[in-house]
Amino acid sequence: MVQLRTAISIGEAIKRVMTDTKNQPTETIDLIQCANLFLAEDLIANEHVPAFDRALYDGYAIRFEDTMEATKTNPIVFELIGEIGAGFIFSSTVNAFQAVRIMTGAEIPASCNAVIMLEDVEQFTEDHVQKIRITQVVSNGERVFTKGTEIRQGACIASKGTQINPGVIGLLATFGFHQVNVRKKPIVGILATGSELLEVDEPLLPGKIRNSNSYMLLSQVVQAGGEAVYLGKLEDDLEKSIQVIQEALQRVDILVTTGGVSVGDYDYLPAIYERLGATVLFNKIAMRPGSVTTVAKLAEQYLVGLSGNPSASFIGFELFVRPLIRKRLGNPYPHLLSAQAMLADDYPNPNNFTQLIRTKCVFENGHIVVASNGLNMSNAITSIAGADALAILHPTQTGYQKGEMIDILLLSAEKGQKHSVFGGDEDA
Amino acid sequence: MVQLRTAISIGEAIKRVMTDTKNQPTETIDLIQCANLFLAEDLIANEHVPAFDRALYDGYAIRFEDTMEATKTNPIVFELIGEIGAGFIFSSTVNAFQAVRIMTGAEIPASCNAVIMLEDVEQFTEDHVQKIRITQVVSNGERVFTKGTEIRQGACIASKGTQINPGVIGLLATFGFHQVNVRKKPIVGILATGSELLEVDEPLLPGKIRNSNSYMLLSQVVQAGGEAVYLGKLEDDLEKSIQVIQEALQRVDILVTTGGVSVGDYDYLPAIYERLGATVLFNKIAMRPGSVTTVAKLAEQYLVGLSGNPSASFIGFELFVRPLIRKRLGNPYPHLLSAQAMLADDYPNPNNFTQLIRTKCVFENGHIVVASNGLNMSNAITSIAGADALAILHPTQTGYQKGEMIDILLLSAEKGQKHSVFGGDEDA
Repeated sequence: MVQLRTAISIGEAIKRVMTDTKNQPTETIDLIQCANLFLAEDLIANEHVPAFDRALYDGYAIRFEDTMEATKTNPIVFELIGEIGAGFIFSSTVNAFQAVRIMTGAEIPASCNAVIMLEDVEQFTEDHVQKIRITQVVSNGERVFTKGTEIRQGACIASKGTQINPGVIGLLATFGFHQVNVRKKPIVGILATGSELLEVDEPLLPGKIRNSNSYMLLSQVVQAGGEAVYLGKLEDDLEKSIQVIQEALQRVDILVTTGGVSVGDYDYLPAIYERLGATVLFNKIAMRPGSVTTVAKLAEQYLVGLSGNPSASFIGFELFVRPLIRKRLGNPYPHLLSAQAMLADDYPNPNNFTQLIRTKCVFENGHIVVASNGLNMSNAITSIAGADALAILHPTQTGYQKGEMIDILLLSAEKGQKHSVFGGDEDA
Repeated sequence: MVQLRTAISIGEAIKRVMTDTKNQPTETIDLIQCANLFLAEDLIANEHVPAFDRALYDGYAIRFEDTMEATKTNPIVFELIGEIGAGFIFSSTVNAFQAVRIMTGAEIPASCNAVIMLEDVEQFTEDHVQKIRITQVVSNGERVFTKGTEIRQGACIASKGTQINPGVIGLLATFGFHQVNVRKKPIVGILATGSELLEVDEPLLPGKIRNSNSYMLLSQVVQAGGEAVYLGKLEDDLEKSIQVIQEALQRVDILVTTGGVSVGDYDYLPAIYERLGATVLFNKIAMRPGSVTTVAKLAEQYLVGLSGNPSASFIGFELFVRPLIRKRLGNPYPHLLSAQAMLADDYPNPNNFTQLIRTKCVFENGHIVVASNGLNMSNAITSIAGADALAILHPTQTGYQKGEMIDILLLSAEKGQKHSVFGGDEDA
């Protein structure tokens, strides 16, 4: 079945994918298990941080007023009336010219308002009473981390959709959120198609290649925040293929196929989409590699047909499936992070389609410089492994020259961005 | 026990940590399980890629010589003698002015040397024989992905110590490495100290704070490539603490403590290191936050004493523990990736120590611009959660001004770099 295909822009393709409005259901997970998951609700400070006035350094808690006259030639003597370790409280009153030894992090006694550091005083004993001598003026609140200075109770400290990194885990722990409301990972199934495919553990045979895309895609799914399910390989039989896909759709939120979406005689996917009643959102994009990327929707499920070529498949996933996964996770920054960078190579050939070149980034004199990472072909596999970014070369009559500034998409950055650099989802 | 401490530079501290020469033992893991692990050996191409001459597009395999005279006004007719699907081979000879229908990815017949695209020919039937009409000259090798063009057999395609990302997984699958030799993760134990610490599920009490650092550090260990083990909290008792640490050292490669390394009276760690016979590599660094970071070594095990302050603890881990973990994993780029960036804020105050400011990065006109991410105090927790980078402010008499270019360390970049931006391990 040879299909007529009309190429749309990358931005338009992203727009059609990102109209999806389904959010993943939520679940409650132990804090220790929630690294890299996505918050299902805003995190609201349930107390001040710090929750009490804390000593910033080891030293002596005092009343600053008592130091007003202190100088090197006029030392003021304070009586030492106790000590406070971190975690303990001092409930007696501290009167004028009294001091309490205090450890970093301990609560300042209610009647004190400053801490003077250990190394700034001289401690001595007089008449069996421990005393300190202060030779400098201390200001109000000095070396005190005042209650609520960092975070006020009721403040939003991490918004829903945030991916939980080590810093967010620290915040959650600070406020005692030992269980966390997160979004369940969308389940993404990977199904290979193509009679040329061998399993990874099979010896190479004439005319055959190994199924490398599936493994790569499984790993991309996990990196994007989804749960990956390997569904094997479709057989070269339309009825059997429809049955396998129908069964797969019982298990997954998104079904990604790789291969079999070329314009060859043997491509069953268009027929399969038709038989399933899926709406094809697009089946050709004005980009290289990956022009034959297809996305179809069946109720709330997505069927994504990626090229069988490794680079095309990799890029198709990053541009269309990654943001879809992250949007379902409620993440407000689902697209690859973009930056401007300087080309280290010439790309002299005109091209009607947007090209996405696998590149390596280096930082030079405050700029990002991107150099091609090997063979720039849709079926290249080596160029993906070491790539840091995709350089975007928009359609051009004149090509691009070394030194030109272009947009790049950073691969494997934890952060993403709200709007795709290609446009298309401004209203999403 | 109050200890005399001499501050050393960050570079010197890194140098002392990175003299470690232990590599993790290796193990063999199924390909599907090895995302984010580190290769224990160079990956050598065991065959050419492509392994045979492949069609780059759907079309017809021909001998280019037969098209030499073809023009629009002088079409050349070829007899169609068969077809080849991807994964199949065509073993008959293709003679002069014969063509074979071929699908993308299929092996070119031995006697052919070019592919002409489907849309560039006209197919017709004459005397019950299928034929095509070619009206253009085709060059030798046109639309053929020639054997070995991408990778030559014997080439090193990923070197030992490489972290296995989706692209590397694709490469491993391509060459049939269904099992992979990787380095075992170093086991990193996290032990909190401090009588002020509550567990995360305990209600807040006067003078107490929750043990947030441990959870943050557990997550940092995993991100760095280690296996994290939570060992709970040390009690305020020297003998018990020594016993707990001795037991911990039976289980871990690196033991990280957080808290109790201040100069307070209650800091047992120096006494513990002494009793264990550990060599203290350093116990003070000229940096803020994190100046009281201590690293000690006992045979091949490391004892890392991080500050109890969240920002100090976070940064101490990233500067000293992350590269240690990655070096043990054989990764040649163990340090945080650095870049140059422009300051969005003034930092007017002189400082004798190197400051590490938690910042957010934005890309503006080809530059990275970094703005402070909240409270710049060692005990701040909020500034870590959203930080993209650490801005490095070297000791200065004059402070720093908005617009100045400085070095930053990118947090959570998959990539790292060989030498620390602080120096110190040039010969490692």
